[in-house]
Amino acid sequence: MDFITILGLTAATITTASFLPQVIKTLKTRQTKDLSLGMYLAMVVGFSLWLIYGLLVKDIPIISANAIGTTLALIILVLKIKHG
Amino acid sequence: MDFITILGLTAATITTASFLPQVIKTLKTRQTKDLSLGMYLAMVVGFSLWLIYGLLVKDIPIISANAIGTTLALIILVLKIKHG
Repeated sequence: MDFITILGLTAATITTASFLPQVIKTLKTRQTKDLSLGMYLAMVVGFSLWLIYGLLVKDIPIISANAIGTTLALIILVLKIKHG
Repeated sequence: MDFITILGLTAATITTASFLPQVIKTLKTRQTKDLSLGMYLAMVVGFSLWLIYGLLVKDIPIISANAIGTTLALIILVLKIKHG
């Protein structure tokens, strides 16, 4: 694998995984007042479209990154709707 | 432009723009207690790597989406560090 491919995969992994600390924090504190509902609504829609795109072009990195991204953003969205 | 390309561009636009409602909310309220520092640190690093990747492969959509993404995530990160 060349340097540029490794760089792209690293970037994809970090941006997707970056939702994890927010999921963990929000599951612990159950405090969501400062989180933007609009952000997580848009993020779930955007990740889902990326996932459909990945399935259509049959690209495993895009499918896996966005399946994880959709799940993490959806958890935060559900917590935001639940806790306000 | 074919359907799949339009779908990918729509997905990229929505996921990048989704940070905007959080930026607006946080600039208004100055409340960042519920935001995860780790999320925005990782997001700025990840978006920056995507930006470098886009510059190396000379892909205008990747460059523009991640230049905007880096800026928006950086604004939230700076507000989080400032307001705690």
